[in-house]
Amino acid sequence: MDDASIGSFLELLRFPSISTQPEHRGDVGACAQWVQARFQTMGLEAELCPTPGHPVVLARNAHRPGRRTVLIYGHYDVQPADPIEMWEHPPFEPRIRDGVVTARGATDNKGQFFAHMLGIEAALREKGELPINLIFLVEGEEEVGSPSLVPFLEANRERLLCDVIAISDTGMVARGHPTFSYGLRGLTALEVRVTGPATDLHSGIYGGAVANPAAVLARLLASLHDADYRVTVPGFYERVRPIEGWERETWAALPMNEAAIRELTGVPQLDGEAGYNALERIWARPTAEINGMGSGYQGPGSKTVLPAHAFAKLTFRLVPDQDPIEVQDKVIAHLRAKCPPSVRLEIERGHSGAPYLVDPREGFGSAAARALKKTFGGREPALVREGGSVPIVADFKRILGVDTLLLGLALPDCRIHAPNENFPLENLEYGMRLNMVLLEEIAAA
Amino acid sequence: MDDASIGSFLELLRFPSISTQPEHRGDVGACAQWVQARFQTMGLEAELCPTPGHPVVLARNAHRPGRRTVLIYGHYDVQPADPIEMWEHPPFEPRIRDGVVTARGATDNKGQFFAHMLGIEAALREKGELPINLIFLVEGEEEVGSPSLVPFLEANRERLLCDVIAISDTGMVARGHPTFSYGLRGLTALEVRVTGPATDLHSGIYGGAVANPAAVLARLLASLHDADYRVTVPGFYERVRPIEGWERETWAALPMNEAAIRELTGVPQLDGEAGYNALERIWARPTAEINGMGSGYQGPGSKTVLPAHAFAKLTFRLVPDQDPIEVQDKVIAHLRAKCPPSVRLEIERGHSGAPYLVDPREGFGSAAARALKKTFGGREPALVREGGSVPIVADFKRILGVDTLLLGLALPDCRIHAPNENFPLENLEYGMRLNMVLLEEIAAA
Repeated sequence: MDDASIGSFLELLRFPSISTQPEHRGDVGACAQWVQARFQTMGLEAELCPTPGHPVVLARNAHRPGRRTVLIYGHYDVQPADPIEMWEHPPFEPRIRDGVVTARGATDNKGQFFAHMLGIEAALREKGELPINLIFLVEGEEEVGSPSLVPFLEANRERLLCDVIAISDTGMVARGHPTFSYGLRGLTALEVRVTGPATDLHSGIYGGAVANPAAVLARLLASLHDADYRVTVPGFYERVRPIEGWERETWAALPMNEAAIRELTGVPQLDGEAGYNALERIWARPTAEINGMGSGYQGPGSKTVLPAHAFAKLTFRLVPDQDPIEVQDKVIAHLRAKCPPSVRLEIERGHSGAPYLVDPREGFGSAAARALKKTFGGREPALVREGGSVPIVADFKRILGVDTLLLGLALPDCRIHAPNENFPLENLEYGMRLNMVLLEEIAAA
Repeated sequence: MDDASIGSFLELLRFPSISTQPEHRGDVGACAQWVQARFQTMGLEAELCPTPGHPVVLARNAHRPGRRTVLIYGHYDVQPADPIEMWEHPPFEPRIRDGVVTARGATDNKGQFFAHMLGIEAALREKGELPINLIFLVEGEEEVGSPSLVPFLEANRERLLCDVIAISDTGMVARGHPTFSYGLRGLTALEVRVTGPATDLHSGIYGGAVANPAAVLARLLASLHDADYRVTVPGFYERVRPIEGWERETWAALPMNEAAIRELTGVPQLDGEAGYNALERIWARPTAEINGMGSGYQGPGSKTVLPAHAFAKLTFRLVPDQDPIEVQDKVIAHLRAKCPPSVRLEIERGHSGAPYLVDPREGFGSAAARALKKTFGGREPALVREGGSVPIVADFKRILGVDTLLLGLALPDCRIHAPNENFPLENLEYGMRLNMVLLEEIAAA
């Protein structure tokens, strides 16, 4: 990696582009302008697109018919630096030690999208042009939930149409181990509210003759799983794609083990659906989770009330090919069937996101896998799924109709969202080369 | 009822003796002095006993060996008058309309203990002395949980020793229908806390491989009952005294029905332990109630966390001859046995109160029943139990070793603790005569 590129990366890291803090609005805008100018320096057409929030930087080369169009996504905004006192140096004064850059945003996401910019720059310099039509979109609101992105995608759909999307904003299983996140879980949310008496009752005067909404809710929630932690909602697993043999084998060989998860989470013991190991449960099996619940008196000491209400917030993590709305329907039917007539049951539907899967053995998926392998000196990429949901991937699919390749460069100890966030310069280099190889592979796919 | 007695009652009602409000401390004290002076006017020895809170008024006649000693308990403090705007007239300016006095404290408890004072006064006037040794204790902190009473009882145990205690601070089933509350449920409290991960986790990144403490808690809580709402804790019903045939018959004939309870509580349908009706469930069957529970995110919208903790506050209403500590032990053993090793379970023991039962067919119980019948023109008293726990009854039993007769004069529509609290003068008269007959019956028992 040449000094000019590193110097340029450090410039980018010096912007305190914290999207959630109004006092940094100017810094966020300045960062966007810097990114735009950098694209222009590279020879791309680049514009700053205003939104109700922070601007989107949109860059492109001269598109030519007959070539694939690739959209690369990144975000130039960062998380707040708090707790500031835990940093070894000011978070927006990047330092390099032993080849590792420390700064807020180093990994998430400046290092990762800037590596792609360097790849484009190198290709243009070396070959004069790119093998594909490029759309490079860098937004400034990812850390606050991308509120302006969906309207922007919808308003600019025509000029964002592409064949495939690439994002580096996920993790690597280990240093130097290329990683392709080829699947994401979806989710669907519900809020359940059980109402019994008109007001909290005296549990002595009425207890025993009036159903306790907290007890009814507990029973409803308990009815979501059997003793083996399988979800008991009829038809819940109907469309679940089984884990394929090659996936089980691949994941079993990954440098990730259950002891590490136990230590990271602090639980006394892992637990979950019978017949699956931890990675399989997280990556490829759907869940029914209680995110919160409440009823009656929660203060100190005791209060002998029979509560009027009880509620729970539920999310169901989904896997291909479950349909969020179909799952909502089934859960609602299950809860209604289990609920006694002595209480009122209200269920509010929440947000949903579809699960996501790209086959890493064919099409653009296999192009991505090949690019990773070539970039990392012939090392086979780790083929992983993620248990979480990346909402923009579903938004891209819905609005633009295309798949997203998740080619993360974040190391397990990169400390994103935490003090002393860091990114090895080696990954800036890997990312730069990955970009070049990936675009070649996509062009040839 | 003569005008002087009524006038005296209205004087008592004019004291805004609200024990919970510091600005009424002087009024509470003045009320205590008024009660003390009234006892003295009647010819009793009466003292004002200071406590860390409001004073206890203690009155007695000249005790003579060979007579029964009866302690009558009442409280001169009242609930706040809020919401003040719902009153038809100022709450401490009593009004009489159609023979009913309206004022804060009219029923709870000034009308009821003053009726006993009038009974003592009439007996002394008519016969020159009482048939028993009297201890009349009127406290000023009942509405704030009687914090000074137990220390007072313990410190004055020797001079409070008695054969039986009488209290009018419970309800009548209907106007003109004498009512003897011969049983109370006890209770025991527990707080259950389930802890999984060290902090709230991302439900996508870990959900499925880590037990959800809210789900584990829901399962533990659901395991407390079977489908027929019987408590499933092993041995829970071991010492439960069956409802006797005469009780079932007596209660079935009472002017209280399930439609009324449904309307009072606002529930769509009553529900409870199979094989028992509503009154039986409330009065004579133990329960496991959730008074409160909480876990994870309870704010608006959704948050996809896998909570670190979940807790529930439980109380078990107990009936004779269940022992609170034995029940705690059994519940704790049950929950520990049901809890998976993937979470940590902490259970904190809370307060307890023993259940209570006096046989209304023998001893002082039958004396009370006879007194009620004679007082109310030969009408058979309603023999009821109460689902609640009256802590002072257990305190009296524990410290003084004697039973308490609960001879309530509160009508169902008396609005205690609510605006427009009222007490019919007819019950002042009934209470006065009840006191006289009761003391005769106890003397003869």
